[in-house]
Amino acid sequence: MAKNENISISVIRRLPRYYRFLSELIQQGTDHISSRELSKIMGLTASQIRQDLNCFGGFGQQGYGYHVESLFREISKILGLDHPLKAILIGTGNLGRAIALHMEFETKGFTLIGLFDRNPEIIGKKIGGMQIYDTEELDEFCQRQRPHAAVLCIPKESAESLAERLIGLGVKAFWNFSHYDLAIGHEDIIVENVHMGDSLMTLSYRVHDVIEKE
Amino acid sequence: MAKNENISISVIRRLPRYYRFLSELIQQGTDHISSRELSKIMGLTASQIRQDLNCFGGFGQQGYGYHVESLFREISKILGLDHPLKAILIGTGNLGRAIALHMEFETKGFTLIGLFDRNPEIIGKKIGGMQIYDTEELDEFCQRQRPHAAVLCIPKESAESLAERLIGLGVKAFWNFSHYDLAIGHEDIIVENVHMGDSLMTLSYRVHDVIEKE
Repeated sequence: MAKNENISISVIRRLPRYYRFLSELIQQGTDHISSRELSKIMGLTASQIRQDLNCFGGFGQQGYGYHVESLFREISKILGLDHPLKAILIGTGNLGRAIALHMEFETKGFTLIGLFDRNPEIIGKKIGGMQIYDTEELDEFCQRQRPHAAVLCIPKESAESLAERLIGLGVKAFWNFSHYDLAIGHEDIIVENVHMGDSLMTLSYRVHDVIEKE
Repeated sequence: MAKNENISISVIRRLPRYYRFLSELIQQGTDHISSRELSKIMGLTASQIRQDLNCFGGFGQQGYGYHVESLFREISKILGLDHPLKAILIGTGNLGRAIALHMEFETKGFTLIGLFDRNPEIIGKKIGGMQIYDTEELDEFCQRQRPHAAVLCIPKESAESLAERLIGLGVKAFWNFSHYDLAIGHEDIIVENVHMGDSLMTLSYRVHDVIEKE
């Protein structure tokens, strides 16, 4: 696998989609697929698919298309899914709880090793078999366990200071659900912001726009 | 407000961010802000901000910058937040429940008017004061209430057929949390896919990439 050094973030963001579609093709028993066929089911152009996959060395064979299972395995490796990294989740309110229970971290590149909250009524309870620790214990826990990533399900007000603290404790990556744009001013850390509210407002714009035109 | 007819989706996707940052500025008591100052706190360039806002007619005054509250009100209107549309939520498992409880629909352009599930143990119970209906009642409910949008928090296996049914019932927009790429093959409906797993895998790629280089 000859990985290109400067792969654009939009190519990277499409990789999980390839991964999902290929996993479905495997389930359906598909052996080989052409970039043309793959482009149809994924809603991309065939040339885009070839370009995307060429960033990672290219996997197709002229005239034979892609071997679905090999491509799936390669993309899985590229995404790092074969070497899960340690992650902790902070804030076990409705959203944090749902993410801890609903999200299959193990198949997405991470192992969830700790849940934290500062609410005394919640600390010590369990979610899906995992105990909730006091955020006061974060320092000690991080020094011992060295998690790479933190999932932030806390209010905006706490996000900035908690993120600073975690960065100080060696956390390099954040999956951020708080309404705080974490990446700004931190070029040294990796952040995926999931601004669910922004997505809902975008939907609002687009529906209103269609209704107005009707 | 002279709205440009062909506003790109990337400009639209930035609007909720403007909305959030302006709302913070109002809370902080800021009256006016230059595109330069706004660009700093938002991590965009000043020219990008001017370009974005010019798509909607432009709101700044040369030399005076933007009046924060007017701009906030205008963006709120552009996003359609002043005229919430009816939405229903289907699938009240961990994630659906969290979204129903956590997300402030009213401030994001929608009014949540119904929750649905097909699990007999859940039907009839309440989430945040709202009753959960049987998905069997969807047809009658939609004919009576005419919801514009549906939030899909159901497994991939059920998503396609349920979406077809809802489209038939007049639902135009989907906020889709299922691992199914709804928009493909439906150019007539509006979909915002929230593929949380894709976001987590993207984070995995990016952290692994940094670690490898260290």
